[in-house]
Amino acid sequence: MRAPHCELPVIAADILERLRARRPRVHCVTNAVAQAFSANMLLAAGAVPSMTIAPAEVRHFVARADALLVNLGTFDAERRRAALAAIAAANKAAMPWVLDPVFIDRSAPRAAFARTLLGKMPRAVRLNRAELAALSRNSADERSLPHLAGSWHTVIGLTGERDFVCDGRRFAAVANGHPLMARVTAMGCAGSALVAAALAVERDAWCATAAALTILGVAGEVAAERARGPGSFAVEILDAVHGLERAVLLARARVN
Amino acid sequence: MRAPHCELPVIAADILERLRARRPRVHCVTNAVAQAFSANMLLAAGAVPSMTIAPAEVRHFVARADALLVNLGTFDAERRRAALAAIAAANKAAMPWVLDPVFIDRSAPRAAFARTLLGKMPRAVRLNRAELAALSRNSADERSLPHLAGSWHTVIGLTGERDFVCDGRRFAAVANGHPLMARVTAMGCAGSALVAAALAVERDAWCATAAALTILGVAGEVAAERARGPGSFAVEILDAVHGLERAVLLARARVN
Amino acid sequence: MRAPHCELPVIAADILERLRARRPRVHCVTNAVAQAFSANMLLAAGAVPSMTIAPAEVRHFVARADALLVNLGTFDAERRRAALAAIAAANKAAMPWVLDPVFIDRSAPRAAFARTLLGKMPRAVRLNRAELAALSRNSADERSLPHLAGSWHTVIGLTGERDFVCDGRRFAAVANGHPLMARVTAMGCAGSALVAAALAVERDAWCATAAALTILGVAGEVAAERARGPGSFAVEILDAVHGLERAVLLARARVN
Repeated sequence: MRAPHCELPVIAADILERLRARRPRVHCVTNAVAQAFSANMLLAAGAVPSMTIAPAEVRHFVARADALLVNLGTFDAERRRAALAAIAAANKAAMPWVLDPVFIDRSAPRAAFARTLLGKMPRAVRLNRAELAALSRNSADERSLPHLAGSWHTVIGLTGERDFVCDGRRFAAVANGHPLMARVTAMGCAGSALVAAALAVERDAWCATAAALTILGVAGEVAAERARGPGSFAVEILDAVHGLERAVLLARARVN
Repeated sequence: MRAPHCELPVIAADILERLRARRPRVHCVTNAVAQAFSANMLLAAGAVPSMTIAPAEVRHFVARADALLVNLGTFDAERRRAALAAIAAANKAAMPWVLDPVFIDRSAPRAAFARTLLGKMPRAVRLNRAELAALSRNSADERSLPHLAGSWHTVIGLTGERDFVCDGRRFAAVANGHPLMARVTAMGCAGSALVAAALAVERDAWCATAAALTILGVAGEVAAERARGPGSFAVEILDAVHGLERAVLLARARVN
Repeated sequence: MRAPHCELPVIAADILERLRARRPRVHCVTNAVAQAFSANMLLAAGAVPSMTIAPAEVRHFVARADALLVNLGTFDAERRRAALAAIAAANKAAMPWVLDPVFIDRSAPRAAFARTLLGKMPRAVRLNRAELAALSRNSADERSLPHLAGSWHTVIGLTGERDFVCDGRRFAAVANGHPLMARVTAMGCAGSALVAAALAVERDAWCATAAALTILGVAGEVAAERARGPGSFAVEILDAVHGLERAVLLARARVN
């Protein structure tokens, strides 16, 4: 397994510059808890979010977007229909989309729905260990990622104390981040939104996923230096993503 | 077209004082992304928000309110029913209401619904250029505002780098504001909520709309001086609206 | 009526330590305006929130939780079904749950639904004076609390300038807090979420309710010293709850 570690910080910096220059549209079918914070995270990174979930019009929004996020938090009937309509529109347009199977470890019907969506070929899946165990019905160990990513034909972004990104052939570990990221609701959802934004400007989904998680992790470290607790941390991480300089990103990225 | 520019800053300051003294109730049928920020913006300005969208009870809330906002973001079936019930209740009580046709440029069914609502006589419409083009099926130029406002029998508040307010006879341009306002989700929605609040304490809808946009623009400038990025800007603009002093508003308002 | 005032600050400090050590899961069926802030408040206090309202899976989440909050804000059909399913699951598991009858003074159908839920034996009810008057169809005076709490077989947490907590036998008044708490949307909802979290680690519901309101009130005072307005106050109160030290809580708690 080749791991071109030395290139990933540069790729992340390039992707961030492209986000700011191109301002891609990212449509999000996401949960109500995460909507505002995810939209603000996308805006901070340079992307333009839209969040409607009405089944009658979600395909119109996806048709005008550059990438799609499907997040399963607050999994109501309308969002299930919206997710299916949005994915159909994205796949028809060969538009990249990301699956975030939030909390599927807590609810069997939600896990079953996530497996259905996994068969619809997301370009990337962003999840935590409990969600990976529920989705794979087995291991939540990062050593299982090459096999799982290969058999699911997707990139897996497994986040936690360290983040791991695997597409079946290539493997990256991101050591950036801060414990306060786990004390702000929807931080993982916002990370998945950033992955979708990165996919809008980078065809290599493994690079895009690793780049998005590196950007968020470095911004989290910058924010933690300025924050007094989880309230100010949530504010500071938006400022940090917005203001993140190329030199700071290159100096602080710890990808190996 | 008469433009009593010199009076508008004073009118804005008077309206802000009335909001703080009278604490009008503003009911909002708005999108999930905007609900919390709009509620906090109304509270910062002195108003008392309520946000329910359940069709069975929205008329009870409107009946006890002083103004109504109808925002079309996240345009689901329930919010469509709620919007129609709320507008019927407001019109029955001769209560002022504001239409915010969010993102109608992205979805034809949403634009059609906005045109239906426009026929129900909103006191003001707050939108951006892309939304104005979709609503008018034509021009998004501020020079079209007198004709459009006249034929729609409403006040149009067109926001962007500069804001324009027209009731068909009178025209105002507000040069206050800051680019970070475009980097916080639901800032336009919160502006529309402020217009609704201003209508609750000022019968002249042109004055109320121009005043609300002036207040928000000046607060945005104050906030930008204190903010480090879009995260802190969203916090600071609430503080700035809450603490905005009459003298500061009069000194900084740029209405011409 | 016995009032062991001297013990309550110590009980509050112990409960906060237990929240941080045990990290209880709190499931919230709450309104869209309050979801993100309530989740962040629970995280700041050490608890782990989940917020789904899909009727098909809410019982799965409640089954894996340690306490439940049912909040009636944005009272749509789906949330009504979710509330009933969640309460049935909680009661089956003898899990404590809190009722927050938001805005029942504005809507008769909502008040009727709140009375139905009150019959399903919440461990605590957190409300303001207008809501108490609507729920009791009569008095909103704190002197009525012993009778009402006794006949409803629950703990009442009546919040306002001062907070009152009564279980029919015992009565506490919490004098902590700050006027800016009324200028942030969903602050009461977040307080109810903290009551649910406290019930997850303390069997005595009167102690748990008084402790949660004391913790929030003291954090509000700390936050007000650092805040410039309601925007920064909402951020600072999360930081203050997260960082609240035992000695500060004991020194500042004003329970009598």
